[in-house]
Amino acid sequence: MIFELKREGHTPLYAQIATQVREMIGGGVLKVGDRLPANRELARMLGVNRTTVTTAYAELTADGLICSHVGRGTFISAVPAAKNNAVSKERAQPSPMPWNALLADQRMDSWLSGLLDAQPKKDAISLAYGLPQAELFPLDDFRRCVDRVLRKEGRSLLQLGLSSGHAPLQQYIASQMALSGITVKPDEVLITNGCQQSLDLIHQILVRPGDEVALENPSYPGALNVFCGNNAKYTSVPVGRNGLDLDVLEDVLSQRRPKLIYVVPSYQNPTGVTMDLAARRRLIELAVKYRVPIIEDDIYHELRYDGPALPSLKALDEYGLVIYINSFSKVGFPGLRVGWIAAPRLVINHLNARKQKADLHASLLAQAAIYEFARQGLLAKHINRSRKAYALRRDAMLAALEKYFPEEAAWNKPAGGMAIWVRLPELLNASQILLQAAEQGVTFSPGEYFYSCSPQPNMMRLTFTMASPAAIEEAVRRLGAVIKARLLSLKRQRGLGKAEGCRALV
Amino acid sequence: MIFELKREGHTPLYAQIATQVREMIGGGVLKVGDRLPANRELARMLGVNRTTVTTAYAELTADGLICSHVGRGTFISAVPAAKNNAVSKERAQPSPMPWNALLADQRMDSWLSGLLDAQPKKDAISLAYGLPQAELFPLDDFRRCVDRVLRKEGRSLLQLGLSSGHAPLQQYIASQMALSGITVKPDEVLITNGCQQSLDLIHQILVRPGDEVALENPSYPGALNVFCGNNAKYTSVPVGRNGLDLDVLEDVLSQRRPKLIYVVPSYQNPTGVTMDLAARRRLIELAVKYRVPIIEDDIYHELRYDGPALPSLKALDEYGLVIYINSFSKVGFPGLRVGWIAAPRLVINHLNARKQKADLHASLLAQAAIYEFARQGLLAKHINRSRKAYALRRDAMLAALEKYFPEEAAWNKPAGGMAIWVRLPELLNASQILLQAAEQGVTFSPGEYFYSCSPQPNMMRLTFTMASPAAIEEAVRRLGAVIKARLLSLKRQRGLGKAEGCRALV
Repeated sequence: MIFELKREGHTPLYAQIATQVREMIGGGVLKVGDRLPANRELARMLGVNRTTVTTAYAELTADGLICSHVGRGTFISAVPAAKNNAVSKERAQPSPMPWNALLADQRMDSWLSGLLDAQPKKDAISLAYGLPQAELFPLDDFRRCVDRVLRKEGRSLLQLGLSSGHAPLQQYIASQMALSGITVKPDEVLITNGCQQSLDLIHQILVRPGDEVALENPSYPGALNVFCGNNAKYTSVPVGRNGLDLDVLEDVLSQRRPKLIYVVPSYQNPTGVTMDLAARRRLIELAVKYRVPIIEDDIYHELRYDGPALPSLKALDEYGLVIYINSFSKVGFPGLRVGWIAAPRLVINHLNARKQKADLHASLLAQAAIYEFARQGLLAKHINRSRKAYALRRDAMLAALEKYFPEEAAWNKPAGGMAIWVRLPELLNASQILLQAAEQGVTFSPGEYFYSCSPQPNMMRLTFTMASPAAIEEAVRRLGAVIKARLLSLKRQRGLGKAEGCRALV
Repeated sequence: MIFELKREGHTPLYAQIATQVREMIGGGVLKVGDRLPANRELARMLGVNRTTVTTAYAELTADGLICSHVGRGTFISAVPAAKNNAVSKERAQPSPMPWNALLADQRMDSWLSGLLDAQPKKDAISLAYGLPQAELFPLDDFRRCVDRVLRKEGRSLLQLGLSSGHAPLQQYIASQMALSGITVKPDEVLITNGCQQSLDLIHQILVRPGDEVALENPSYPGALNVFCGNNAKYTSVPVGRNGLDLDVLEDVLSQRRPKLIYVVPSYQNPTGVTMDLAARRRLIELAVKYRVPIIEDDIYHELRYDGPALPSLKALDEYGLVIYINSFSKVGFPGLRVGWIAAPRLVINHLNARKQKADLHASLLAQAAIYEFARQGLLAKHINRSRKAYALRRDAMLAALEKYFPEEAAWNKPAGGMAIWVRLPELLNASQILLQAAEQGVTFSPGEYFYSCSPQPNMMRLTFTMASPAAIEEAVRRLGAVIKARLLSLKRQRGLGKAEGCRALV
């Protein structure tokens, strides 16, 4: 996309941008479904104000040529009427399919791309993703495991399998869960393609149109994608220092009778907070009282750095009301897409039937390789090594935050997980900070991605798993400088002499 | 499950079975969600008539204790009221979650298990599955490819990837499709976990509640699972000698305006028929005329044994109305779960967003391994070898059918694919034949699994890919004997001296 903007002319810049996008669509340079750069990105490319781009996009949206979703992306949605015929004749390709009208949902929820778009520089230090660091993978060990399972049972791994999963992996998971005090039989474990699929399958078997779901706010964007899509009903329950606010939850349960509660009790994403034992017990009691099932997302279970090892909700559940989900994606292999659901058998049977409809079964090679890696004790070793490395990185980040961030910022010390949740002074907007930080070679996730309602623009999530302690210190140093400079400049603009009061973090 | 049946007593056998199942549920031996054996299976186990079991199950169903779906399975759905408290006390585990009431859909569509249940003997010759034969896999070659990609790019393959797919595989697919006359850019290809997921994703972005879908009848059971689930609306269009009956389709399009048409134009499953070029052109014209998109399932594309290489609908489509799906599951690797969708970019963008919500992306190791296998030319070699082997097996099956099946049976000669569709004399029921055949060590799929409406109980699908030509001949010989004996006994019972007239096959 090449724009030619005349800064001296009479036509406002926004109008020039809108006209040129319109011409690119008419001329076939941009096609229906093509993605436009994010506002901030195009603003940077063209060296114009972000409002200029926002105005241009608003005009194109009003014309019905593009559709735009805050934080998600902007897409070409139609061809200008006047040019349509000319283009069609030129290309001699009639295009009568009214796809836009045919789509069940005009919106595209593409949070993953949204996050990826926000990361412009390839060599930047990334504090943006909640992912394990690839360099920690014991790749040679893993490669030998893959080779071994292919030699041993390759023919059956390439053949169609059972939708419930690779039986040895189901058994292994059941035995591991028993070590954490969860009694579950192998056939009460369904292997999925990771927690994202687990959430999608559970949503599909339990939530009817019009049903409401109770969610932590803020929460994992992939869960928001499942539970807060078009026409979905949900109630956002705030997350406090001790996790999900149970007083608010009780009000919600008594008044709105949601269909289920989705919760990450340990090292919640993005806040990093953990529910203590009393809170876990009370949550179960509330769920029993109001007969509302719980989805317990325990994906950070293995990434505990300090604090007590608390029982999972599933371990405390005597009522068969917890659907437990977990995966191998945070401990080592997100690219393999293997996770699981443990639940009462009736629920597992329904999920299994839905899994068959969704994709028959999870990739057998990935399942068998992970099982072999675990069977040889390599997974436990790798988790230990990762845990130690990540604890050091968390501490490096905490120390650097103390050293480089302005006094008015606040954050927590998570006892596990992958991220620190930082509250900037309310003057600041984390998305704007990201633009400047990216220029300094540092990226992170603005807090706005994590809210199902009332997004707080001054929140940021910094993950500490993918960079070395030294890189983390350097990244936080640069971030601190950007934040302090921005703060100073805003205060000067607004004539504020003093720092704003900093409220409690969560 | 152990039953004690008293054959001399006054209590009918069916009542004894019902009572004992009731006691097993009450006593906690059988739990809600547990699966009961299929009618025929339990009948065999107990040495009783199938009707006895059917009657017992009917009684338990009437009591609300079990729910049963023909050909799919029978499950415990509740605990007898009187015993409920006693059991709860005994187990000291309150179980207040009313899961049955909570489930969005009481039905479980589990056709895969249904098919698997129908295969009782492990050492049987299977003519039941449309799967590649594992023994033909060039396992060592494949293992070397996996090892190579893990050495070369293991760290990025284990890391989270893009939801659109592994870019080299998308490029490879686009270039392969170009060889069949389909112009598609790599970013108009979405990698999925196989055709089952492709259908599920397409269904989710295009079909709103109340929308109707036009389907071939009979068709692939996995597609029926997606398009004919609870509350789904669909129209079944018969399949004739030249594929989908286009006259019926035109009536359907003009009167009912379905949301989409699902069709397998080449070597249709289960009938094996192929639409000729004129039919393909007319189908496209109808779709253009009524503005209804087509899902073209081209999964048997590579398995052509004779007859012309016809252009796909997608190759004939100048209107951007065909959504093309295919996978690697029939040519070699069903267990890896990798397939793709090629469609106009707007549609792909929406599918991509839905894929993110469903499971983020397909397993990267599987994608990269298949790409490497293809890149080295090993896939093409393997396809060639498979094609030759399967052509011989098809011919062996055709010859054996001619030799051993009764005159009144009819079948087609498919030019490709994996199966022969056989019509037995109308006196016969293929599911009953399967019971007797299984005792003779031969299995197949009764036709009833493939119908969305008006199932014809005398149809059977025999696949020829998983057994050697000699085993196929032996299997067909045994099948023929079972069928002839059954036919003779039925004719005697009914006093029919002469064979019934055999109608045209499809």
